[in-house]
Amino acid sequence: MSTTRPAHVAGRAEGDLKVVSLGGGHGLAASLSALRRLTTDLTGVVTVADNGGSSGRIRAELGGLPPGDLRMALAALCGDDDWGRTWAAVLQHRFSGDGPLKDHAVGNLLIAAIWDQVGDHVAGLDLVGELLGAQGRVLPMAAVPLDIEADVHLRSAPDRLTLVRGQVEVSSTDGQVVSVRLDPSDPPACPEAVAAVEAADWVVVGPGSWFTSVMPTLLVPGLRDALTKTKGKRILVLNLHEQEGETEGLTPTDHLEVLAAHAPELGLDAVIADTSLVDTRGTLESTARSLGARLYVADVAASPGSDQHDPGRLAAAFGRVMRTA
Amino acid sequence: MSTTRPAHVAGRAEGDLKVVSLGGGHGLAASLSALRRLTTDLTGVVTVADNGGSSGRIRAELGGLPPGDLRMALAALCGDDDWGRTWAAVLQHRFSGDGPLKDHAVGNLLIAAIWDQVGDHVAGLDLVGELLGAQGRVLPMAAVPLDIEADVHLRSAPDRLTLVRGQVEVSSTDGQVVSVRLDPSDPPACPEAVAAVEAADWVVVGPGSWFTSVMPTLLVPGLRDALTKTKGKRILVLNLHEQEGETEGLTPTDHLEVLAAHAPELGLDAVIADTSLVDTRGTLESTARSLGARLYVADVAASPGSDQHDPGRLAAAFGRVMRTA
Repeated sequence: MSTTRPAHVAGRAEGDLKVVSLGGGHGLAASLSALRRLTTDLTGVVTVADNGGSSGRIRAELGGLPPGDLRMALAALCGDDDWGRTWAAVLQHRFSGDGPLKDHAVGNLLIAAIWDQVGDHVAGLDLVGELLGAQGRVLPMAAVPLDIEADVHLRSAPDRLTLVRGQVEVSSTDGQVVSVRLDPSDPPACPEAVAAVEAADWVVVGPGSWFTSVMPTLLVPGLRDALTKTKGKRILVLNLHEQEGETEGLTPTDHLEVLAAHAPELGLDAVIADTSLVDTRGTLESTARSLGARLYVADVAASPGSDQHDPGRLAAAFGRVMRTA
Repeated sequence: MSTTRPAHVAGRAEGDLKVVSLGGGHGLAASLSALRRLTTDLTGVVTVADNGGSSGRIRAELGGLPPGDLRMALAALCGDDDWGRTWAAVLQHRFSGDGPLKDHAVGNLLIAAIWDQVGDHVAGLDLVGELLGAQGRVLPMAAVPLDIEADVHLRSAPDRLTLVRGQVEVSSTDGQVVSVRLDPSDPPACPEAVAAVEAADWVVVGPGSWFTSVMPTLLVPGLRDALTKTKGKRILVLNLHEQEGETEGLTPTDHLEVLAAHAPELGLDAVIADTSLVDTRGTLESTARSLGARLYVADVAASPGSDQHDPGRLAAAFGRVMRTA
């Protein structure tokens, strides 16, 4: 690594497209990594319902929002130079050993510490972003920590719906998730996230864990209102594969129908799907059309069969949508 | 805070004085804060015998060096702009709450995580320094964690010497410390610290906790050898006050005699003492002279009666020494 802190200015370029991406985990990190190539005015709006691992322990110990998905978004926005890439790797590092620090991600501790110091989630995240030279803004979707509840057809009791509670529990459930809710069901949206969606030229939903990262961002009433009313256009990015547990057996078309069931009033302008997802019968295209969206098909996987989007290819697909949708 | 990462280059200016400062805690931070105003080629060599608080817990949990004194030195070298000052404050912040994170300093966790990731103390500290834009280098005095043992005339048993073990225990002892040792007594010096001392134009010892921060840096054989043989000139900075427990009842002259007893072969070139320390009988001056040193008297306290050095005044005193010693 060079010993020089880069002189890069993390501020926004005048007149650049305003883009907001919603979700959590690896999926949101993938969309942010792609979108940062297209604009300097980029905001990630992040789910805050994680209850497991390092985030769950920090949430339980300190009482604030779970920092893990916010950390991943910030790491995705670190500078694309030695200094930024090193910071991104440090944020993601988890402690080894066998003690109370084991498995805590460094970035989670940094975010939690700055919240502890500053006493405000948004001001704290803005400060972390500035300290890391993040090329965009990261905001929580809600101002309070949330829990996820799901109605599930468990494999052990397939004939009735069972209530499963907790993001970790839902994402690893042995059964078919039908729908998710937030608890509390009417949490206050983060006002800065609402304002970003309202002012956006483009809003991106997905990819990501469909029931535990993507759907939750549509269930915060104030944010959902903004998503419905914004003059910005809405892009949905489909996952490359079903996820074991959470979306096992769901087709790409099912994913769109899950979204329509959770947010029926939300129209879409574009759906981005990897070439491998497209069926010969045109079901995906017609379902997308029924939601108001044009289907964009492109090779966006990191490699054939991968479950990771390639940031460059995804950026090219976003670019095509933004020129033509 | 500005949203711009400063373009400051943390590298060394060609031809600048090479300065090494040894010690730990607030004392070393004070000398580094002063010396950074005089040179860009600055190295802090830091005691690694802390066994208490956040450092003690990290040392016990992860098995590496105690990071606390290294953190304070790095915080003192953070840039003198909004970005650097914010990082310094974040490094020093300790978690609140009542759980396993309570009282951990953020910078301790950052250093420990990077050691965990990189697997090498010096490479890890260099990396932390680069990530923080530190304006100088911070090195441990030894390559292994150490413990301090002291011979103490306890108030409860004043007629005999009692062995007190541990930096925390020695610094808070209720009695008169006579001498300290390291355990192990012959630890490997940090080779980069030895090389820095050998190449230095100026070496600074103190201020700081006399028995638990300053003396330990003179007791690592390889480092002590380098301190004795370096062609660089040696400056000692006296503390402003005795410290409750550790140096209660010790006069400034006693401090010099403690140093001479622990490192009899170590000559000094200059002793910096605050005006308030100077006795009318000239004892301090003659003791300094017996160690080879000229006594420099200056107002270096942050305010009358303070136990903190003022970085600007201390820098002025260092400057005078460097022009005339």
